[in-house]
Amino acid sequence: MKKVSVILEVPFFDVDAMQIVWHGHYVKYLEIARCELLRTFDYDYPQMQASGYMWPIVELNLKYRGSARFGKKIEVVATLVEWEHRLKINYRITDVESGQTLTKASTVQVAVDQATQQLCFESPKILLSKLGIEA
Amino acid sequence: MKKVSVILEVPFFDVDAMQIVWHGHYVKYLEIARCELLRTFDYDYPQMQASGYMWPIVELNLKYRGSARFGKKIEVVATLVEWEHRLKINYRITDVESGQTLTKASTVQVAVDQATQQLCFESPKILLSKLGIEA
Amino acid sequence: MKKVSVILEVPFFDVDAMQIVWHGHYVKYLEIARCELLRTFDYDYPQMQASGYMWPIVELNLKYRGSARFGKKIEVVATLVEWEHRLKINYRITDVESGQTLTKASTVQVAVDQATQQLCFESPKILLSKLGIEA
Amino acid sequence: MKKVSVILEVPFFDVDAMQIVWHGHYVKYLEIARCELLRTFDYDYPQMQASGYMWPIVELNLKYRGSARFGKKIEVVATLVEWEHRLKINYRITDVESGQTLTKASTVQVAVDQATQQLCFESPKILLSKLGIEA
Repeated sequence: MKKVSVILEVPFFDVDAMQIVWHGHYVKYLEIARCELLRTFDYDYPQMQASGYMWPIVELNLKYRGSARFGKKIEVVATLVEWEHRLKINYRITDVESGQTLTKASTVQVAVDQATQQLCFESPKILLSKLGIEA
Repeated sequence: MKKVSVILEVPFFDVDAMQIVWHGHYVKYLEIARCELLRTFDYDYPQMQASGYMWPIVELNLKYRGSARFGKKIEVVATLVEWEHRLKINYRITDVESGQTLTKASTVQVAVDQATQQLCFESPKILLSKLGIEA
Repeated sequence: MKKVSVILEVPFFDVDAMQIVWHGHYVKYLEIARCELLRTFDYDYPQMQASGYMWPIVELNLKYRGSARFGKKIEVVATLVEWEHRLKINYRITDVESGQTLTKASTVQVAVDQATQQLCFESPKILLSKLGIEA
Repeated sequence: MKKVSVILEVPFFDVDAMQIVWHGHYVKYLEIARCELLRTFDYDYPQMQASGYMWPIVELNLKYRGSARFGKKIEVVATLVEWEHRLKINYRITDVESGQTLTKASTVQVAVDQATQQLCFESPKILLSKLGIEA
């Protein structure tokens, strides 16, 4: 199972008037981990584009359980959980020092053929090939 | 039923390398509409804080169906759908020109007592009072 | 002299832990006013691109004199001050309620020929024509 | 002379429709390096606040000479150049692979006494003490 972990440090500009990370900024943390995950099988955005497909996010879900604060280290674990018809990735963000889970999230992406602009109902062969799965 | 509509224009800095609004920026559009909705019953962030409660977002869900582009006008409709135990707001974002639905979303907020930092399992009376509901 | 004024409202997500707009977000406010200014002579980003030129920002200067706060209305006045060799725009941001000047800023853009990727040391004719100036 | 270097990787969400980092996002890169620099003498935002002073940015200048792109590593070097009356920091951002200078920048911060909200025309003793300079 494809899985990565990245460690980030909360920057000052992500913290809101409540002294905690503004909830929308977690979407950035997810993307940093997602790109790292996609790179483990050589299929990050540039490779997607080169392969003739875009993979827009069609679904994004976040549950917030705790608050990240300025200067704190957070770990984002991203796990690939679906790939046959769509790319589904689950995420867990934890505070490194306390081990507390801050956020659980998931994203769903689908392939869109750049030439036809059509949505693909099955993942294109290139993805399965990158993942080392025989189509 | 409490409901508002706001019209926004997509700024250049929200558009990504695919020439469409980066998916994370929609969270900002939701917040602009949410604050507008909360103001219709005089309970935006400053009033929340003055009332002794914070209302952090605990859940955020987005489904993307279309793409907003630079300079386009988009409408964000926010509707209050739950208030007894938590604040749940539904959103629909449409492209003004074409009428196409771009995004459907929802957020859930819960009250946290500022003094005790305890989560409230029922909405505090101040919210119901602001909404004109007898507790 | 080309000049526009836009009124913006400070969103919650632009406010930092000090309860004031994070200094970097003013760059967005400048861009909103700049695009509005460029539209008065039909030369916003899409028209720039169609004309065969990019106009990257090469210089950005800001002086901060006051702080914008959540929910406040701010006015951004953008004035075109140079166009022969480069586009220089001056900005003044004021708090609408108090009239206090919050920020003074300027940006400089130069034309880059998309075909050759060469910097233009004189503004291309298309700009002067859009501005109604005989080249 | 106080000086730090940080290496960052350009995230997808910082790249604009021109496939380059949107010019406003460099302000974030400066802040990441600045916080790192301030930590070398134990005077980052939390320590500033604890010392009874805020240090708002009053001036920000950027010159753009090249473009950072998605996935590229960039180095931000921050150097403390003034401290007696104000904190002035110079920055240089370079593309790690090519060594090309992308951006030169500077920020100026002044001390504001939290109790009186008055601007300090000389740097408070705490700063000089942190810097190991006898007042």
